[in-house]
Amino acid sequence: MGATEAEPRTRVLILGGGFAGIGVARKLRKADVDVVIVDEHDYHTFQPLLYQVATDLLPRTTVGHPLRDLFDHQSNARVHTACVTSVNLEKREVEFAEMGPLGYDYLVLALGAQVNFFGVEHAADHAFPLYTLADAVRLKEHILDRWEAADKDPALVEDGALNVVVVGGGPTGVESAGAIAELYRAIFVTDYPDIPQENAEIVLVEAGPEIFAMFHPSLRRYAEKALARRSVEVLTGEIVESVTPTRVALKSGRVIPSHTLVWGAGLQANAVVEVLGLELQKGRRILVQPDLSVAGHPEVFAIGDIAWITDAKTGKVLPQLGSVALESGHHAGDNIARLVKGVKAEPFKYFDKGTMATIGRGAAVIQGPRGLTMKGKAAWLTWGAVHLALLSTGEDRAKAVVDWTWAAFTHGRSTRITVRTDAT
Amino acid sequence: MGATEAEPRTRVLILGGGFAGIGVARKLRKADVDVVIVDEHDYHTFQPLLYQVATDLLPRTTVGHPLRDLFDHQSNARVHTACVTSVNLEKREVEFAEMGPLGYDYLVLALGAQVNFFGVEHAADHAFPLYTLADAVRLKEHILDRWEAADKDPALVEDGALNVVVVGGGPTGVESAGAIAELYRAIFVTDYPDIPQENAEIVLVEAGPEIFAMFHPSLRRYAEKALARRSVEVLTGEIVESVTPTRVALKSGRVIPSHTLVWGAGLQANAVVEVLGLELQKGRRILVQPDLSVAGHPEVFAIGDIAWITDAKTGKVLPQLGSVALESGHHAGDNIARLVKGVKAEPFKYFDKGTMATIGRGAAVIQGPRGLTMKGKAAWLTWGAVHLALLSTGEDRAKAVVDWTWAAFTHGRSTRITVRTDAT
Repeated sequence: MGATEAEPRTRVLILGGGFAGIGVARKLRKADVDVVIVDEHDYHTFQPLLYQVATDLLPRTTVGHPLRDLFDHQSNARVHTACVTSVNLEKREVEFAEMGPLGYDYLVLALGAQVNFFGVEHAADHAFPLYTLADAVRLKEHILDRWEAADKDPALVEDGALNVVVVGGGPTGVESAGAIAELYRAIFVTDYPDIPQENAEIVLVEAGPEIFAMFHPSLRRYAEKALARRSVEVLTGEIVESVTPTRVALKSGRVIPSHTLVWGAGLQANAVVEVLGLELQKGRRILVQPDLSVAGHPEVFAIGDIAWITDAKTGKVLPQLGSVALESGHHAGDNIARLVKGVKAEPFKYFDKGTMATIGRGAAVIQGPRGLTMKGKAAWLTWGAVHLALLSTGEDRAKAVVDWTWAAFTHGRSTRITVRTDAT
Repeated sequence: MGATEAEPRTRVLILGGGFAGIGVARKLRKADVDVVIVDEHDYHTFQPLLYQVATDLLPRTTVGHPLRDLFDHQSNARVHTACVTSVNLEKREVEFAEMGPLGYDYLVLALGAQVNFFGVEHAADHAFPLYTLADAVRLKEHILDRWEAADKDPALVEDGALNVVVVGGGPTGVESAGAIAELYRAIFVTDYPDIPQENAEIVLVEAGPEIFAMFHPSLRRYAEKALARRSVEVLTGEIVESVTPTRVALKSGRVIPSHTLVWGAGLQANAVVEVLGLELQKGRRILVQPDLSVAGHPEVFAIGDIAWITDAKTGKVLPQLGSVALESGHHAGDNIARLVKGVKAEPFKYFDKGTMATIGRGAAVIQGPRGLTMKGKAAWLTWGAVHLALLSTGEDRAKAVVDWTWAAFTHGRSTRITVRTDAT
């Protein structure tokens, strides 16, 4: 493992191949360092489109791209797949479950987050989070499984097999609820002509007073209407108290018969932070210095969802978003390149390019910089163009064009299959 | 389940949603019958391209198409997913594991085949067949797993982790060996720059005196050269005797260190035939009458890989090929439509459109009707055009165009990821 080098070069070890990790690696392309990226999976995940995998709009291979492929043409980078078991900041060494330890000169903690069930009873056993590609595939297969089961046993419809409760009124929750509603109303209505789907309910539950709290009020109103048009029931000021495989109980006392609880509600940093001995903030995110390094360790950077990053420009803590992950990754990469050359690291200033979300076909909201807002079909087309541009490679883009074009013109989605490899 | 009908119509129950089964259903589109298709999976498999899923050229969703989608616009057809547990030809009823029994007026046995290991020791435990989509995904993930393991532990290369033995010199074996060789030489060479892959061997083992026995000698010679150019070693007159997870032992005494044995060697009809009480032929295939019905049961048809079909024109037994499955399906469908209208069933005459196979990029062979042969780049382009035309829908075609075009121009394959849904 590792190239056979004449003499050891400065090694930058990047833990995590998400937006943050690949952002760092890209910026070190021309630096005189060896870049080693370690991720537990062999793919990079385009997280903003996970809900489209869960609802059969895109196949897993458009949203998950081979990590090695991303670095085929970066000769100073190596990729390995392994799980981190411990990080020794004093010894400057990381241990892995599947391979020997790796020392480093610079370490980048970009391991992301995991879902936070906030102690809701049995949520860990029965809820479907939507943070990883495996999460998306599991949810997709579960939804198909419930419809197939209802096809064979109509009594399951009465039992709530087709009902879905989505927790969280942020982009993940709203996009999921909208996409599931369209999957039901446009696809399953012809796939299962004998199932009375008017009885299938999709309920979006938000603890706060409103969904889409981060968006301008006019966009919020629009999103509410767009969800209502898709027969999604929105419950605000409501909290999930417990969940069983077939029931979701709310704090208010209401019990919704539902075999599917989608959890789009909260994150906490990767559990590895617990053993680092670093200062943690809310959601156990690692507190970082203005230059994105951690206190006392100028050679260790924390970026993306795992980090508690304060914008040097506005003084505000930045949200756990893909755009923040990528930008903080780029900045950490630039800072490491500076340090390697003996130049001082610089503080991170976030450039907010805006936030966007889709509710369904022809329905999206965009909140750009400087108060710009956009909604409806124009926003939806802009959303599509931006996301196409952001997908990893031209191949992924071309595939997404085929999938989206087909879905837009025919309402067809040909990824709704379940290939079980455990049984023969 | 089942539409709410005024009065029961003639029910045609089709067991199996492969080429044979969908061929029958299509031909009954305008017949005054209820068509019920039951398959254990929720997808139809385009079997001729399975090796491309195994070698990351196509994603599973281009080769597996939702069965329900194929019949969305056929109002007299219903699809269910369930496993057949027993068939009662006297009672005219079929039982399933996951749903209640279904009676029928006409029954179509189109359950296909399963791999035949011919009693080779431990082959059932360690070999990788390539007959189902799950087989293809398993093989793909296994190959990726071996390379990832070798990346972390270089000693595994010496142990044969990257070596592949392919059994069977027919199209499945030759296409698989060629595609694996290209995956190694074009993709993994840059994915794993530190693994000395010149040590990775791909060996094709054929029991008979020659590979591609069904092709014209000039095409055989061409295929041998094309394999040699891709560093595939061909062993003819050689038989696999036993297999362990890391070794393949041949009858000649040679032992090949290899963690991967691809089984493209033989088929036997679906095990369900054992309980039918019908006359079986070699490979336990069901003997059918000239009209494709079974003796003593004019209302029961057997078609595709499960059937022992004699061509009414030539008197020859037809091979287990997709083209035979589809044509016999169409013919059985037409015959059922005739019987429903009180017209006599007709004997099946096979129209041989030819056979084709690819060895790799720019290398294919075609043996058409009337002695026509074609090889090399022109054959490869023809092969591509024909297979594009045969893929289920325009969407599948468009996706395959993207995948193949990208692979052809860039040697890139972006489906080489493993999404494990069993772990969280």
